[in-house]
Amino acid sequence: MPVIQVDHWEGFSEEQKKEWIVALTDTTNRLFKIPKDKITVILREVPLSDWGNGGVVATDPDFLAKSRAAGGEA
Amino acid sequence: MPVIQVDHWEGFSEEQKKEWIVALTDTTNRLFKIPKDKITVILREVPLSDWGNGGVVATDPDFLAKSRAAGGEA
Amino acid sequence: MPVIQVDHWEGFSEEQKKEWIVALTDTTNRLFKIPKDKITVILREVPLSDWGNGGVVATDPDFLAKSRAAGGEA
Amino acid sequence: MPVIQVDHWEGFSEEQKKEWIVALTDTTNRLFKIPKDKITVILREVPLSDWGNGGVVATDPDFLAKSRAAGGEA
Amino acid sequence: MPVIQVDHWEGFSEEQKKEWIVALTDTTNRLFKIPKDKITVILREVPLSDWGNGGVVATDPDFLAKSRAAGGEA
Amino acid sequence: MPVIQVDHWEGFSEEQKKEWIVALTDTTNRLFKIPKDKITVILREVPLSDWGNGGVVATDPDFLAKSRAAGGEA
Repeated sequence: MPVIQVDHWEGFSEEQKKEWIVALTDTTNRLFKIPKDKITVILREVPLSDWGNGGVVATDPDFLAKSRAAGGEA
Repeated sequence: MPVIQVDHWEGFSEEQKKEWIVALTDTTNRLFKIPKDKITVILREVPLSDWGNGGVVATDPDFLAKSRAAGGEA
Repeated sequence: MPVIQVDHWEGFSEEQKKEWIVALTDTTNRLFKIPKDKITVILREVPLSDWGNGGVVATDPDFLAKSRAAGGEA
Repeated sequence: MPVIQVDHWEGFSEEQKKEWIVALTDTTNRLFKIPKDKITVILREVPLSDWGNGGVVATDPDFLAKSRAAGGEA
Repeated sequence: MPVIQVDHWEGFSEEQKKEWIVALTDTTNRLFKIPKDKITVILREVPLSDWGNGGVVATDPDFLAKSRAAGGEA
Repeated sequence: MPVIQVDHWEGFSEEQKKEWIVALTDTTNRLFKIPKDKITVILREVPLSDWGNGGVVATDPDFLAKSRAAGGEA
């Protein structure tokens, strides 16, 4: 019965999205024997400009390093 | 005070969206006398390629039949 | 560890979105000393046609006045 | 295929929740002939202490008046 | 960078939830080589009384059969 | 008009939640002059057992170190 919603960065192809939907569904079905027709997956693309972690916007070329370093800030 | 969020397939016209927003608001107001200015409706379009049910992606021409049949899969 | 998701009207520039992401992150970090690398902000643009309050769609030129007036409706 | 998620204040009985689920489903089915087995409704209770509008927390006895008045604040 | 949010029925043990969190994270990491520290999973329990599919509330002992049959309703 | 939804760990007092709601509202109002009565904040508590980052569940006493280290895993 779960609804799995995934907010994620833009840039995935339709083929990759299909893989993701099938994999998340199969993983959930395999773990708990939930009937597949009751498992819904919604993928929501988010532009890099609209995503922030550690106060760093994902458009920043050094996003990974800077967002991780932000862990040290008081 | 409810916030009603609807994730739905692409393809609805602006007129249909307006009907949907008004109907969900009126239904909620009628049932519980919640002041309408405190009822917010957010519709979120999801491309068919980003929606899965039963492990079937909504771009599949046989989406309805296949996603329903997926209920039988162990 | 919070994930802050903001559904908002279209119309913000990338610069404004960056300001918003940084401000929401800093506010949360300042208040509770949550490490910044564990604070995620997701902004989700919603077209005016897909947003309703008080049963009034945001495309309505009198949205503010009408949605506020809707508070008086039984 | 819509997933309708409703964040709402605590205080609804199971009977009222059932009414809400059925009414939101029927409204959506009636408007767009979407098969009912593809309409999911999720109600999420939110304690009054966790809900704010106009910078006023819903536990405030004057929540309605104060939150509406907040519209006037610059 | 995805945030995976799962709304699901009550009834999972802490051990099962851990399995689910790890499996959804590993599946996403394996598919797209996304660094695991940038994958967040949030599970949200929903009481059966607050979940509806096909206009049938999940507290109904015949929920599966009735919600599937609802697909036939005009 | 934004709806700000915050999924966060359990453990915040009502006083802290009020501070958070007011601060997120004021920050948004200050930045963009959005009328406060049109800014809604919803806080959603998530038990530590239901939160994962880097494939590590938040109940893990070494959650911070392990989840950050998970960034190095292929």
